[in-house]
Order: sequence, then C-alpha cells, then structure tokens
Amino acid sequence: MSKKNKLKIIPLGGLGEVGKNMMAYEFAGEIIVVDAGIMFPKNDMLGVDYIIPDYEYLKKRAGQVRALVITHGHEDHIGAIQHFIEDFPVPIYATPLTRGLIEGKLLRNGSKAKVQFKTVQAGEKSKIGVFSVEYFHVSHSIPDAVGLGITTPAGLVVHMSDFKFDHTPVDGWTTDFAKLAEFATRGVDLLLSDSTNAERPGWTPSESVIGPGFDKVFAEAQGRVIVATFASLISRVQQVADAAAKSGRKLAFAGTSMVDNVKVARRMGYLEIPDELIVPIDQAQKMQSHKVAIMCTGSQGEPSSIVGRLSTGTNRQFDLKEGDTIVLSSHPIPGNEETISKTINRLLRRGAKVVDDSVAPIHVSGHAAQEEQKLLINIVKPKHFLPIHGELRMLMRHAELAQELGIPKENTVVVENGQVVELVGNKVLLGERIPGDYVFVTGESIGDIDHGVMKERSQLARNGIMLIDISLDKLTGRLLQEPEIITRGFVSPEDAETLIPDVQELVNNLIHENGFDDEKDIINAVKSYLHQQTKRRPMIFVTLSKA
Amino acid sequence: MSKKNKLKIIPLGGLGEVGKNMMAYEFAGEIIVVDAGIMFPKNDMLGVDYIIPDYEYLKKRAGQVRALVITHGHEDHIGAIQHFIEDFPVPIYATPLTRGLIEGKLLRNGSKAKVQFKTVQAGEKSKIGVFSVEYFHVSHSIPDAVGLGITTPAGLVVHMSDFKFDHTPVDGWTTDFAKLAEFATRGVDLLLSDSTNAERPGWTPSESVIGPGFDKVFAEAQGRVIVATFASLISRVQQVADAAAKSGRKLAFAGTSMVDNVKVARRMGYLEIPDELIVPIDQAQKMQSHKVAIMCTGSQGEPSSIVGRLSTGTNRQFDLKEGDTIVLSSHPIPGNEETISKTINRLLRRGAKVVDDSVAPIHVSGHAAQEEQKLLINIVKPKHFLPIHGELRMLMRHAELAQELGIPKENTVVVENGQVVELVGNKVLLGERIPGDYVFVTGESIGDIDHGVMKERSQLARNGIMLIDISLDKLTGRLLQEPEIITRGFVSPEDAETLIPDVQELVNNLIHENGFDDEKDIINAVKSYLHQQTKRRPMIFVTLSKA
Repeated sequence: MSKKNKLKIIPLGGLGEVGKNMMAYEFAGEIIVVDAGIMFPKNDMLGVDYIIPDYEYLKKRAGQVRALVITHGHEDHIGAIQHFIEDFPVPIYATPLTRGLIEGKLLRNGSKAKVQFKTVQAGEKSKIGVFSVEYFHVSHSIPDAVGLGITTPAGLVVHMSDFKFDHTPVDGWTTDFAKLAEFATRGVDLLLSDSTNAERPGWTPSESVIGPGFDKVFAEAQGRVIVATFASLISRVQQVADAAAKSGRKLAFAGTSMVDNVKVARRMGYLEIPDELIVPIDQAQKMQSHKVAIMCTGSQGEPSSIVGRLSTGTNRQFDLKEGDTIVLSSHPIPGNEETISKTINRLLRRGAKVVDDSVAPIHVSGHAAQEEQKLLINIVKPKHFLPIHGELRMLMRHAELAQELGIPKENTVVVENGQVVELVGNKVLLGERIPGDYVFVTGESIGDIDHGVMKERSQLARNGIMLIDISLDKLTGRLLQEPEIITRGFVSPEDAETLIPDVQELVNNLIHENGFDDEKDIINAVKSYLHQQTKRRPMIFVTLSKA
Repeated sequence: MSKKNKLKIIPLGGLGEVGKNMMAYEFAGEIIVVDAGIMFPKNDMLGVDYIIPDYEYLKKRAGQVRALVITHGHEDHIGAIQHFIEDFPVPIYATPLTRGLIEGKLLRNGSKAKVQFKTVQAGEKSKIGVFSVEYFHVSHSIPDAVGLGITTPAGLVVHMSDFKFDHTPVDGWTTDFAKLAEFATRGVDLLLSDSTNAERPGWTPSESVIGPGFDKVFAEAQGRVIVATFASLISRVQQVADAAAKSGRKLAFAGTSMVDNVKVARRMGYLEIPDELIVPIDQAQKMQSHKVAIMCTGSQGEPSSIVGRLSTGTNRQFDLKEGDTIVLSSHPIPGNEETISKTINRLLRRGAKVVDDSVAPIHVSGHAAQEEQKLLINIVKPKHFLPIHGELRMLMRHAELAQELGIPKENTVVVENGQVVELVGNKVLLGERIPGDYVFVTGESIGDIDHGVMKERSQLARNGIMLIDISLDKLTGRLLQEPEIITRGFVSPEDAETLIPDVQELVNNLIHENGFDDEKDIINAVKSYLHQQTKRRPMIFVTLSKA
C-alpha cells in the first residue's frame, strides 16, 4: 500500500540550484516534469556555453513521462526545452505568454520538433494522468508566471517556483493569496519554495519603485539612453517604455531575442506600448539623441552581447555616441561581477555615462526575501517544507526560517539535486539517490564534455603545453635533425627562444648519451627540467618516429 | 624653469586599481616609490599566482630611485617588496609594525636581499633627497598605517592611501585630523585619495561594531569557533582574542603567516593578548570544543587555505569536528564570490555551521565611504584632486564627489595606471603615457607569461587540443600506419572513440586520394570536419615524418 501511495519528488541537475532548472514528480509509474531550464556556466567551466540538467533517470522511464509543466518564461526554466522535447515528445503545459516565449525560442534555435502545447490559465486545473495540477498566479519579474498545486493520492504539494509578493507589480496582477489560503484550508502536505533570497532580510521592494528611478535617469540624460536588461524581463520593458514616453523619447529595440519577445508580449497584450512610441533601430540612428531610447541585452556585461560589443566598439548595428547614458538594469549574477566591472570600465573609457543598480534604483530582485518567504509559509501552513531554488547555504537558511515559524525540524528536509524526496503516508522521507549531474552544452554538442574533459582543460590552461617531435635514424638510433618544439600558453616567445634550445640539448643528450627506453623517459626528463627552470608543469607531448 | 619645478606622479601597474600597488614621485631626477604590493589574479588570468606592477620605467632610472616608502602592511602594499628590492637596493621607510610584517614576509619567502630599513613613526618627517615626507596616522584595518604629506619645490601633495575615519578603532588611534587640517593651512596643491568605496554611500561602520557581533557568535556556538580572516588583518585578531576571553575560550592560531604576524604584532605591542589565552593548535585539539577558538586564513575560500582544506577534508593539522562554527570574517573580494560560495556549501555539507557577513556583523570595510571621502576633501581643501585606489568606475564616482564639493572640474584628473600626472607651476596636467602593465608571477617565474601566453591558454582551455602524428613512407608517400591521435580537453573518452577513427579515415583519404601539400592542409581539413561534427574548434597540431 505504501508503495502505491508514494509520491517521489525528484530534483535534477548537478550541484546547481536545487530543482530550479528541472523537477520531476513520480507517482504510481506516472511522471510529470516541472520546468526545463538552463544554467549558466561558472567561471571554472571552461569553454561551456550553457548547462542542462542530467535527466538520465527520466530517459530510463521515458514511457512514463506524461507532461512538461512550465511555471514561467525565463531562460533558467525554459532554456532546455529544445533538448527535452527531442527525448520526450510530451505535451507542454504553459500559460499564454510563457507558451509564446517558448515558441519564439524554439523558432530562433531552429528546433524542428513538433510540440503539442496545452495552454493553461492561472486559476485553471489540468488532469494529467494521476496528477491534478492547479495553476495560480504569482508575481515575478515576468508576467503570466504561475505556482502549482499538485494533488495525488499521496496528498497536496504546493510548488512555489520563482515568486515575490509584490503589492504593486507592473502589470497590476498580484500573487494569488486567496488560492494559497484555500490550499491551506484543504491541508498542504508539502510546500516547496524559492530560496534565492533566503539570505536577504526584509521584503523585496516592489517593481514600482523602479519607475521613478528610470524617470530621473531619462530626464537627466543629455543624449541617448540605452537600457540593457535580460530579453525575458518583460515587465522591465514596460517600465522603460513608460519612461521613454514620459520623457518624449522614441524607443527602439536591438537584439533578436529582445525584439522577438517584445513582439510576442505586445501581440498577446502583456505589454502596452503604443505603436507610435516604437521606431526601428535604423531610424533611431538618424534622430536627435535626446529623442531616443534603446533597449537591448547585455546587462551582465557578456562580451558577445550588444552592451559587451558597445564597450569594445565592435557592435555592428549601432555604436556609442557622445553623451550616451547606458543603464544596466539588472543585478550581477554571482560570478559575473568581474565581467560586468570590466565592461563598465570599458564603456566609461569610451566616454559613455553608466548607471547601474549601485547608483540609481533601476533594478529590484524578482524573488521573495525573508519576510515574504515567512508570509508564504504562514499562509500555506504546510505540514512539511522543502526549500528549493538555491545553493545549499540558502536552502539551509530557508529551512531555519521555516523552523522559526514552527515547522518541526523533522518536517523540513534540505536536499541537493539527485536526492529523491518521498511523500508517503503523510510523511516526508529521503528516498534514493539517483545519478544526476550537469550536462555541458557547447556549440551543438550536448554532454560530450564531462568533468574529466573540464579537468584536462584546466590543466592545459594552468601551464600550457609543449610538443616535442623527434625523428630518429632507425639504424643508428641517432637524431636525424634537431627535435622540433612547439609551446602554447607556456612561456612568451622571447623566453621560448632561450628555453627551447636548452630542451633540444637535453633531448639530444638523452638520446645520444644517456639512453632512454621510450617517450616517457623523455617526457619525465623534460618535465623535471622545465619545473626546475620555471617552477611550472606544462603538459608535455612527445612524438617519436624512426626513418 | 618649469621643467625644474615639475613633480611627476606616476601610477604603475596595468589595468588594476590606480596607484594601489605602486606609485612613484619624480622631481628633478630624483624618485621615491610609495608601496610595492601585489594584485590577485582575476578569474580569466589562467595559471597566475599573483601580479606585480610593471616598473620598467623605474628600472631605466634605477640610479635615481632614492627610497621605497610603505604606507601599511597589507599584501597589496608590501607583497612585491621581495621582487622590488632585488632591482632597487634602496632604504625602505616604514612604521614599526609595517617593518616587522615586511621582515617576517621576506623571511618566510626566503629572500636573501639585505634590506636597509628606516623605521619612522607617524608624526615624523623624512628628508629623502629633494623630497620631504611627513607621516601621519590613519585608521585602517591594520594598526600603524600612515598617510603621506610629500613636499617638493613643486608644492605639497597629500597621499592618502587606504584609510577610514573610524572614531572608535580597535587600537583607539584615530586618523590624524589635526595634521590634515595643518596641511590645509599650509595649502595642499594636490590630494590623492583612496577610492575603493567611492560607490558606497554613507559612512563605513566603525570596527567597534564587530565586537558585539563576535560576542554573540562565540556565546551561541556549541562547539569550537573557527574564525577565518586575512593574516594581516591585525585589528581583527585583537577582536577575536577579546571575544574568546569573554566567552571563556582559549585561542589557537593556525597557518604560518597568521602565526608569524601575530607574533610580530604582540612583540611590538600592537596586540594585547595575555599569554594564558593562547594555546598551541595541538593542545587545542585535545580540549573540550566549547573551550576553544581557532584563528586561521581562508576567508576568501581559497582552495589551498586552511578553510579551503577544511571544506574538502584535506587539512593536515586539524579537521572539522561536530558542532564547529566557521566564521568568515571578511567580505568577498570582487571575483571571489563563486569560490567563497562553493567553499561555504562544502563546509555545510560536511556538517559545519557557517557565519559570514551576510548573516552577522562580523566584518566591516577598512575603507572610507562617500561621506568620509567628502570629509577628507573638506578638511584638506586641496587645489587639485586625483582619485587613486580603484577601478575607473570608482575613480570617476570619486571625482564627481569632489566636484560636488566645489573642486573645479578642470582641477580633478582621472587617470589609469601608466598615465603620468604632473604638478607644475601650481597646475595639474596630464604628462606622458609610459608603458606599464601587469607582470604575472607563477611559481618562480616573473614576467615570462604575457597577455599572448594568457590568450593561448584561454584558447587551449576553450576547446582543448588534438594532436595527429603521421608517419609516411618516404618513397611511396603512403601512410606507414594509422595516424596516432591524442586529444586533451576536447571530448570525453567515449566520444573520442567514435571521433578518432573518423579523423583517421579523413587523414587517410587526404593522403592517399585527395593529395595534400603540407601539414596545413591536414590541419584545415580536420578543423573543418571537427567543427562540422561538434561545432567546436580545438587547437590542432600535426607532426609529419617520412621513413
């Protein structure tokens, strides 16, 4: 009986934020998956474009997967869909804007998969196999985001993906307190909740505080205002459009994803921007600077983004102009601080004015802070609590908050990705540990770079390489010519000029005088010589041929 | 005449913080150098241990360098002395504690250079050639720090290195307001001031706010308290010792630099810690956990530090124990956020409690914030202003602050390292641009890694390498055997198994059917094949021999 009534909650994807990019629910042989997003590589993940969750566990149960349910249209929740649907041609449940953004993204990425969408509205319910899924509105930095009430015979689980309790959101649509309270009256067995800001005391400011911030920047700017943010931060687009209108500027959009997303959101009525406010970027180029605002991507300073290219003078569509004000409307994602600072310094060096969230109130977080997290728990009154969406340090802080509110310690579980949690017989238990890791995506290859490859890359990068090509006379065993030596990433050309002859002589001696058995002897001798000379250990490769 | 009366102010060292690690003053053929510190590598500086300023300009004028003047004993101001004194055997002017810390550091690093120290006290004056240097006390996160009043025939320059206006510093010794005011009455031609916190509004909290923070952590901890900070943060050591004494714990120090620095500071009277409070780390190991506090390094999560090793269970002297509380008493240096978070998560995973400055008031900045920076300018009333110690974004903010206080825009100059500033005829002008960059130090090699090498490293790391060794029959031109192919950091071993035979076949076809001229043809063919297959571009090397 217990086995039949067991709901498995399965967070997928390496040491990233727990369950943020993908979470699966399994009951009696049926599985629904919530979100399929990407993670951005950390600084030590060399040469990786992005990361998707390892869903090997699901692949082994492909016949049991019934649906993909998406909570909202941000990259870290929808970015892996193009890969997921190739393995699981299941229907995707999403609200209208989320669906529109997914469709746009699949199109841009040239996905040929036929996707069956089930458009759902906040307030509705889907019956998916044994699962009953209720969608309810949450405010976040993108419109049309939802949380989920998931009912199975094991009980009611509330899955609170990214959210905040914004009383004055840009679209006027607040989080559905009534639904949360209704869940509470029905009895919530388990609450999963967004831990992103679990270390931040207080209450995240409303998006409406940004409006006056933008108004001030737009009014004071002598020249053009160029606002950079994430392409999917749809609410921010509305605020920039409003500020442009107020300050008598026309608005142009730059960058494919930004242009696409705005088109989708306007068509569906999630953005209210009058036609006459918008001008194409080419036309904006010809207008007087103080009549122009431009929205584009690159608020994290990414070198390949529009702002990144503006900072190095390599943007094709348009370049910086005298008097430009660049507004970076986002907060540094941890790990990006250096890149952003470098980009800001470059923009300043090129004469632009730069406004970021340390200088003016032009960004707020989209995630609930501690007081909101506590309010959620007190409204929902769950029996058990599982913090999600955060690193271990945030999850633990969130669990402590829950315990301060009276959730018994034994009823809160902190897990990392790959650790299955079970809801069974009104209890929450730790289940099996499943394999699950990062899957690195580079170019068009998915998963053929593993941690071993990454380790080799970091070895290559740490000290560079030396290649030694040796040709021997097959009769006499003597060198036919001086060994050819190439180095990359090891020493500067000038230093190589003195080091290479020394290594050649060393190899010469080894071969003609000291004797050697195979390439390994040469590698070892050169290795210890180089270490003695430079205290460094490049990777050494020897090719040996006899003629 | 103007040439004779020209003071050159020369900030040295790449795109780092301006003049932070080294600054030179040159007048009528005489040079004094202020500070000789190191910079820590950024995340994209692969395989670099640390960075020292490029002082090629000084080397060309070695006979003119009269002295090295040190403002305080932090790594970014003294860390490059061991290299500097090998090139310039000039006397080093430093306060007693700073001198002690330098001596300890030179000893630890095995420096054999004979150094002539001139010990100076805050309040004293040195006549160094044409320069008259007045030392005055400033409060900072290390005792015995000084600012400099530098008088030459060109005028009076006040060089304000790292400082804050702490009214209740740990050692009770506040910044010398009287001296600053006295300079003002004499007339200050140019003020140089620390811009580290120019983006931070308000007033940096006093170090004394940390005391109660530590007391609370020490009182609540059930087991041992392990406090990590920088080895040179001497004031913090005093505060931890006080908290240990109050909570009835003995204090042990771990890590050579920490142990050394504490020894120096205690001997010289800069730390007041009774003998009976201190126990050796071995003894601490045998005591009851709630009777023990340990101070060590690693607050930035560095993998090779004690805290880094505790997080991975690889520390030799001692390991984590049940109930340990780890206090990270510092703030993340920009760029270190990821490493610190990773380390914290690992410590939590191993069962430790972790307290950082986001959770408890156990750290404050050692640098003046905006209101202090403004106060300095209003006390000193300089004619001209040159912001130092900061990236361009901070320097510009600092210059704006100065202008808000009435310093005319034409009297504030914002420069980066390598741009000489001249004080001549009561005016501040931009002088020549001198070559000056980062000098990368790795192992024992200094400067033999340049930006070209770094670029190669990043190429190696981005996609890895493929080596193809080809042996041809010299008569027929046909392959003697299958090409040998090695990859590193490119694809996983499983993928290599399918990719390598394909490349072998491609090479086979090229050689036997399509013909080729040299290695380049093979490289190009393989390159385009691999890109087509994987959308990636590893570095390809071909060695070709004929037998």
